[in-house]
Amino acid sequence: MSANPRGNGTFITFEGIDGSGKSTQVKKLADHLRRKGHDVVLTREPGGSPGAEEIRALVLQGDPDRWSAETEILLFTAARRDHMERTILPALAAGKIVICDRFADSTRMYQGLSRGDLRAVVDQLHDLMIGHEPDLTLLIDMDPAVGLSRALSRQTSDERFEAFGEDLQVAMRQGFLKLAEEFSHRFCVIDGARDVDIVARDIADHVDGRLA
Amino acid sequence: MSANPRGNGTFITFEGIDGSGKSTQVKKLADHLRRKGHDVVLTREPGGSPGAEEIRALVLQGDPDRWSAETEILLFTAARRDHMERTILPALAAGKIVICDRFADSTRMYQGLSRGDLRAVVDQLHDLMIGHEPDLTLLIDMDPAVGLSRALSRQTSDERFEAFGEDLQVAMRQGFLKLAEEFSHRFCVIDGARDVDIVARDIADHVDGRLA
Repeated sequence: MSANPRGNGTFITFEGIDGSGKSTQVKKLADHLRRKGHDVVLTREPGGSPGAEEIRALVLQGDPDRWSAETEILLFTAARRDHMERTILPALAAGKIVICDRFADSTRMYQGLSRGDLRAVVDQLHDLMIGHEPDLTLLIDMDPAVGLSRALSRQTSDERFEAFGEDLQVAMRQGFLKLAEEFSHRFCVIDGARDVDIVARDIADHVDGRLA
Repeated sequence: MSANPRGNGTFITFEGIDGSGKSTQVKKLADHLRRKGHDVVLTREPGGSPGAEEIRALVLQGDPDRWSAETEILLFTAARRDHMERTILPALAAGKIVICDRFADSTRMYQGLSRGDLRAVVDQLHDLMIGHEPDLTLLIDMDPAVGLSRALSRQTSDERFEAFGEDLQVAMRQGFLKLAEEFSHRFCVIDGARDVDIVARDIADHVDGRLA
């Protein structure tokens, strides 16, 4: 994607298990940065551009077994490519701050967890077709028991990622923490079990420090 | 895809510019092989399985510029992966003859033609996610002027591949002939300008020879 340079924007992603408070913290960080005068683009994956949202619908609707893990990775990578080209890279080139709720680390974690041999496929596809990594990834870490009760209290219909039990949530938490070690230069692990405003303050301080 | 062996079936693909008579010859070869007692599966790309047909619709419907070339390659590779898993490999494993109207060579030719640097991307994606090549590829070669007049005489609505002028058809013919040289071990170039039944006899003789 060298024809579409990143410019001087900042690319921030949020990761974490369902119910970790990611979506709330994404909005709070956007509010904080806008108050400080930054131009912020809020987006999410899978989706984030009109084409990518169509691919998201194709993957997430219907029988969960309708696609193999490999086909699903290809569809998510197609959606991410479109999202990069149409939403993220133009915003970064214009000097904006892009905050994205989930990105490639979610694919690495979910697919790697479902079948260990897929992590290498995900990485090779990412290197070939996406290339870019976030400048900063905020992992909202949380005890899965707390996260699950929060997730179940919400009523979202199209998010089959949330239709998992507690054992899998425990494995996901460990998967994300392993990624945070692997990519320690860009990951920042945030204790999400604290009061929501304290977590938001913590995140804002980290991001302010990075932008300074 | 090593977990899903090809078995002892035979995988035959047809390639050629629009109007070359491919679809007619595909059916004639299937009839010939069935008369000889073979179990034949007829399929096509993009598409060929329920999921792949949905991806085909997503790519081919709407504004032709809605997807970048790279995103389109990823979507076609996702469709091909599904088609391989659900249609082609199970049939080959059961010892059947699979005849497919277009396959990976069409992607190589079309994308390589639209932007030269994409051929390497197509090949890397194919190696990573598909792996298999046909046992025999029948290239129906034809003067584009003849092919174009045949294509225009048909009224197909969803085939935007056909919305090309004669210069591009000439380039496509050359592109396919180059692929036939590159993969000469599996390509067989058939002169498609002759009478349709003579072409069919020629193809049947070639295939009978391979199966013997």
